[in-house]
Amino acid sequence: MNNKHFINNFLDPKSVALVGVSRKTGRGTFNILENVIEFGYRGKIYPVNPNADEILGFKAFKNVQSLPEGIDLAVIATLRDTVPEIVNNCAARGIKGAIIITEGFGEADDKGKLLQRKIENIAEKKGIRILGPNSVGVVNSFTHFSSAFVLLPKHLAPVALISQSGGFFDGFSGCPFGKGIDLGNTSDVNFIDAISCFEKDDDIRVIVLHMEGITNVSEFMSVCRRVARFKPIIVIKGGRSESGSKASASHTGSLSGSEALYSAMFRQSNIIQADSLSVVGDIVKAYLSLPPFKGNRVAVITPTGAAGILSLDFSEKHGFQPAVLSSETIDQVAHLFQPWIKVGNPVDILSAGMAHGYKYVYQTVLESCLKDKNVDIVLVVCGAYTLKTIKTIAAKYPDKPVVAWILGADQFFISKQAEKYNFQAYYSSPDRALYALKVVREYYRQRDGIKET
Amino acid sequence: MNNKHFINNFLDPKSVALVGVSRKTGRGTFNILENVIEFGYRGKIYPVNPNADEILGFKAFKNVQSLPEGIDLAVIATLRDTVPEIVNNCAARGIKGAIIITEGFGEADDKGKLLQRKIENIAEKKGIRILGPNSVGVVNSFTHFSSAFVLLPKHLAPVALISQSGGFFDGFSGCPFGKGIDLGNTSDVNFIDAISCFEKDDDIRVIVLHMEGITNVSEFMSVCRRVARFKPIIVIKGGRSESGSKASASHTGSLSGSEALYSAMFRQSNIIQADSLSVVGDIVKAYLSLPPFKGNRVAVITPTGAAGILSLDFSEKHGFQPAVLSSETIDQVAHLFQPWIKVGNPVDILSAGMAHGYKYVYQTVLESCLKDKNVDIVLVVCGAYTLKTIKTIAAKYPDKPVVAWILGADQFFISKQAEKYNFQAYYSSPDRALYALKVVREYYRQRDGIKET
Repeated sequence: MNNKHFINNFLDPKSVALVGVSRKTGRGTFNILENVIEFGYRGKIYPVNPNADEILGFKAFKNVQSLPEGIDLAVIATLRDTVPEIVNNCAARGIKGAIIITEGFGEADDKGKLLQRKIENIAEKKGIRILGPNSVGVVNSFTHFSSAFVLLPKHLAPVALISQSGGFFDGFSGCPFGKGIDLGNTSDVNFIDAISCFEKDDDIRVIVLHMEGITNVSEFMSVCRRVARFKPIIVIKGGRSESGSKASASHTGSLSGSEALYSAMFRQSNIIQADSLSVVGDIVKAYLSLPPFKGNRVAVITPTGAAGILSLDFSEKHGFQPAVLSSETIDQVAHLFQPWIKVGNPVDILSAGMAHGYKYVYQTVLESCLKDKNVDIVLVVCGAYTLKTIKTIAAKYPDKPVVAWILGADQFFISKQAEKYNFQAYYSSPDRALYALKVVREYYRQRDGIKET
Repeated sequence: MNNKHFINNFLDPKSVALVGVSRKTGRGTFNILENVIEFGYRGKIYPVNPNADEILGFKAFKNVQSLPEGIDLAVIATLRDTVPEIVNNCAARGIKGAIIITEGFGEADDKGKLLQRKIENIAEKKGIRILGPNSVGVVNSFTHFSSAFVLLPKHLAPVALISQSGGFFDGFSGCPFGKGIDLGNTSDVNFIDAISCFEKDDDIRVIVLHMEGITNVSEFMSVCRRVARFKPIIVIKGGRSESGSKASASHTGSLSGSEALYSAMFRQSNIIQADSLSVVGDIVKAYLSLPPFKGNRVAVITPTGAAGILSLDFSEKHGFQPAVLSSETIDQVAHLFQPWIKVGNPVDILSAGMAHGYKYVYQTVLESCLKDKNVDIVLVVCGAYTLKTIKTIAAKYPDKPVVAWILGADQFFISKQAEKYNFQAYYSSPDRALYALKVVREYYRQRDGIKET
């Protein structure tokens, strides 16, 4: 079956049957219909419940057999014993895709494993595609469709999350994402299907994977190599420890394997492996907000010498080197400084700012650095207010990345300022900024080393 | 001179002379008097300015010689050439301590180095203690005194920052701190003085150092070993890279040395070396909010299997091991789960919560884990709302640390909830939580291995 076609059914169905919708609604009832409505879905909805005529104003159907033909997608949340027959009936009504929310299959006992195999056989024979079981399904903030049984946050972020856990839909600590697919037990729809679908999706510029294990390595690698030419793929691997790996077997039923092997596979697939959840957002932000770059000479502008030094420390740690400012640059900014100050990199503007005003000094020094052919990247250390000035100057030199290390602990205030001035490449510490730059630089270097195969 | 006595003069002066206060006030003038007033200082203030009779309602003195005797502290911000004589005159008026804000000394040219030596000689001969030069001085949120030329944020946090940069006073990205000393060029008052003073300060429970270099290693080590028995000392070392080290020589004039040597010294002094600014706040939070602990068996309670697995991964990475829940614990919680679910660690409460309500399930499972003699630490994965429940149960078992990994990306909302329920030991990812726990656990293990000498 055509991938593009089936994923449209999952992520953007024109009509959806909700099989096993409860008549109970409100907080704590986890009613999918209620959440589908609240999330803003605009397609046709067909609830299925043998004991109801109507739920939340929608006509309810006694069973799948009584549904009209040609519905795009079924979302199944019934007792596990009933699922195989329901899948069979969905296929018979011409439904091309089913999300199975129900748990207790491959991740559970022997009976569950048997039931999952039964579903797989039906799917293969009848040509219906299955997402799950043990999956929350999908979330698509762009089309306002979500199959989740809780109301999810909505982000119009050009980031797709492909996860082996629906738990991350409601609270992914990595970064905001606009579309998500929970593979659950991955009995049919798998990483390859999901990645391929986001390949041509213009809403999506970055793909984040949460993976516990895969099986068809060779196809996975070739798809990733192809897609990573246009969209970075970042992976968080679960089950890297011995105990985590054991737990993974009973979570999605997948076997996470030797971590060295996975790391090698990611490297060879041009996938970025994030060591921890906390760096995912940093990397995504750098990629989405900075122009492509490959140089490694960093100029630092700072109102505190100490911050300049720490910035150079982490530059070196992450493979960058301090830019040697050209004599033109030094001449251009010399008038701002006391005669006994030797201007160099980092440019320490503490006293210059006090004498001439920080706004003017940031402007002048940043512009001079961006003009300098010896400078590839500028790191500006500053308070949140300065983002406006940085944004204005940086916009004049769209080919050179400018990142900010914002001093101060009030992250909420900082994020509001960043939003106001539409400047996203800011970080709370030099290690985070320079680590993100390192990863993105490696992505561009690797990408442009890849030849069409 | 008695350390306790002189630091009181710096951090909590009853009276202060501000030498070189400008008549210009308002934004961009960096008027120290204005900031001293706004910060809420309650002692006596004596501005010194040869050209003014009054500044901001305070009687101005023409020079230091005309000041009354017995003022606790002078803050000097005049041209560098004038500073030695002013220090001399301060000593003559019985002032026991001076903060020198002015820059252009040991960190600058040959003339500056000469001027700094001159000041050092005067200080030694006349018995006046010097903080700086090239220092922003002090900030004390508890007594509302700050010598800074900008208005600093105020935090009643039991954390002291001893820094070689005043730039961090206004925007330390590590953690909020209640008292700070900027050593600047460290010509007289040094790390040893400052650490000793916080040793007996009941407002302070943790000491954070930002260090570029020190000289008297042996005394430093012995003081730190002594103080670290009661208060953890955390250091951020600047100038670890080749380029950063070079820049450091021209920042505070201090020579940062071989990094391996510094790391060894920190280790042997029982100082915690933070790899990066971003982990300082995590460590401080864990220390301040958790009871002492030495065990390493972690139980994880999670609404998503994937998060449980990642938690075990990072537990193992940071030297913890998964607790093996006792049969009593498993019996106590068994009724919450479907019969085909094998309850173990991590405890995956997704479906139990849906069936019985998350609040009840978190309560029951957390309490059972805290009672379990096989469990040393509990990591709870949850949404911010659950902090209230966790707080209540954790309070019943004050000897076992409970930390939370809060799912979700809205850090502002999360921090507001944490504040509301007075629960601080929360983290945005398992790597951050478990790294902080590792460091704090090592602190307690090391501390209790230290014998009185």
